[in-house]
Amino acid sequence: MKVNGKHHRTIWLDGQDVAIIDQRALPFSFEIEIIKTAEQMVTAISQMHVRGAPLIGVAGAFGVYLAAREVSNLSQLTALCEKLIAARPTAVNLGWAVDKQLALVSDTMSWDEFVEELKENAQKLADEDVEICRSIGKHGLELIKEVAQKKKGEPINIKNHCNAGWLATIDYGTATSAIYLAHEKGIPVHVWVSETRPRLQGSKLTAFELLEEGIPHTVVVDNACGHLMQHKMVDMILVGTDRTTRTGDVCNKVGTYLKALAAKDNNVPFYVACPSPSIDWALTDGVRDIPIENRSSSEVLTVTGDITARIAPESSPAINYSFDVTPRELVTGIITERGIASANETSLLGLFPEKS
Amino acid sequence: MKVNGKHHRTIWLDGQDVAIIDQRALPFSFEIEIIKTAEQMVTAISQMHVRGAPLIGVAGAFGVYLAAREVSNLSQLTALCEKLIAARPTAVNLGWAVDKQLALVSDTMSWDEFVEELKENAQKLADEDVEICRSIGKHGLELIKEVAQKKKGEPINIKNHCNAGWLATIDYGTATSAIYLAHEKGIPVHVWVSETRPRLQGSKLTAFELLEEGIPHTVVVDNACGHLMQHKMVDMILVGTDRTTRTGDVCNKVGTYLKALAAKDNNVPFYVACPSPSIDWALTDGVRDIPIENRSSSEVLTVTGDITARIAPESSPAINYSFDVTPRELVTGIITERGIASANETSLLGLFPEKS
Repeated sequence: MKVNGKHHRTIWLDGQDVAIIDQRALPFSFEIEIIKTAEQMVTAISQMHVRGAPLIGVAGAFGVYLAAREVSNLSQLTALCEKLIAARPTAVNLGWAVDKQLALVSDTMSWDEFVEELKENAQKLADEDVEICRSIGKHGLELIKEVAQKKKGEPINIKNHCNAGWLATIDYGTATSAIYLAHEKGIPVHVWVSETRPRLQGSKLTAFELLEEGIPHTVVVDNACGHLMQHKMVDMILVGTDRTTRTGDVCNKVGTYLKALAAKDNNVPFYVACPSPSIDWALTDGVRDIPIENRSSSEVLTVTGDITARIAPESSPAINYSFDVTPRELVTGIITERGIASANETSLLGLFPEKS
Repeated sequence: MKVNGKHHRTIWLDGQDVAIIDQRALPFSFEIEIIKTAEQMVTAISQMHVRGAPLIGVAGAFGVYLAAREVSNLSQLTALCEKLIAARPTAVNLGWAVDKQLALVSDTMSWDEFVEELKENAQKLADEDVEICRSIGKHGLELIKEVAQKKKGEPINIKNHCNAGWLATIDYGTATSAIYLAHEKGIPVHVWVSETRPRLQGSKLTAFELLEEGIPHTVVVDNACGHLMQHKMVDMILVGTDRTTRTGDVCNKVGTYLKALAAKDNNVPFYVACPSPSIDWALTDGVRDIPIENRSSSEVLTVTGDITARIAPESSPAINYSFDVTPRELVTGIITERGIASANETSLLGLFPEKS
């Protein structure tokens, strides 16, 4: 999508190295970082230079390529890959992408050929992610069109959470893809941007994206979403996911569950944009089984915008659960690249019969 | 309650003037401000040097006294009182306290005697608020004791929101009063402090209070409360209110409604500490009729801790609804100074039959 009117992806090959947008600097400055080693990629993922489940999946895939350049056999590579996977525990995409890469190993290739293959495959996964996001957008667009018919020219108010935009993926985004398509087609949309404490991916990244694309939006604190829904200011909720179980339980940025509860209480449809690599086909109970990342308490006790402010007494402790799980009962539909499923195993398997 | 081990109230007479704690500076510094004019009091209320429904009620009462010093007849005084009432629209206590003061006017008093009477009555309202908070604490303590019996010595985890502590009242607080009493009696309590964006009264004020009183607590982002309840880390929710209808709809700091939804979904009892001056006996439908203050968007687009950080792009707009209404169906009980009512008209009138 656009930054200063020029098209960008979030990750790309820069010669033999990997380039990323260092998202920690947004929206205050636009900085490109060149990643040359697996260790640099581990840092970029764990310290959230890149973030968003689909993007960290592809970043992990490029990380395997960088790792392979540094070693000469599979056991050394596997050790580095374990560090990559451990960089963020909640999103399923990271392990999925690393496994996809490691599966390429073959007796018929030299190590150098394998390294080359890893590079090409990482690029292919990036391209595939773009196609997945486009497809999710097309299916989501149909939902927006349905609302548009009822609203007769008035803007459709869409509430999101965190950043499930192009910055969380390679391009287009998951939850934002349908919004960008609707905007392209002249359907009036307005996005309520939840700031998304603690790291403010909503006010810092989603607002930045929407601004650069010229899409009307309003930033609100996370606390405001119940009031907005109670007063009929939200037509639909559209969020992303870091990991969704085969049964339709949705793990996403902390606070998503609260939005789903308010949506249910006010008859607002709650949709999840979910690329299939974010589905964990091995899990059936999301609340019980999805590991929830517990990040540094400093993210809670301070707020980082253009500068970092301390917001609590020096001696107060904090805890920082970074995700929560929305039980399937609260989910209206899961938008995948193959179509929209209900949040249950039968419906998801209907779209992905190969996972039966 | 204590600051650096020394007992303080939030507002008191300093000779013929009024002293307050300027709460904007907390927890980073402890600053006392002397208020000499009605206009200074309007500023102190609207700019939130003082905040919290009970405290702004008493501050309003002292404001009427200061206003009366500046004028010589009732119509001039009424004009100044209108400015006081308009300083914050949501809490019912402000209008209630100003009306109480104006009702003191009498043909048998000189203006100077009336001014003196206003001063004494403001002090009386402050003292009464302290008694109300103590009584609410005693009733709330019974609820905590019930949970304590089940937990057999383990800490009782109480989740709050915003600051309904002594800093929101004159002393003890509404929601915190029972917590302070429990702590005094050696019942182990642990408070989950919601930071409470946008103004962070949780992480800045409640954490400060609890720290000064030595009460174990942990700061979390507002988004985390659903996850905590889903994982059985919360035994009860205890919040304050800025205005509660005669039917039990509870208006409180924005985000309270989301906590109530999560409490309902996880069978966590949701209690509201409500001094009777916060009950609006004229209203029956809180969601429809309670005016919701829409404060400056700068509170959303920036975060003020020890310094102020900008957290969104320069050109992104924001909106700042500062309160929301929790419908009575989600409220387990309303703790008043006369006892605990269910959230309905019959039960509230049972405690306050004079309002029938």
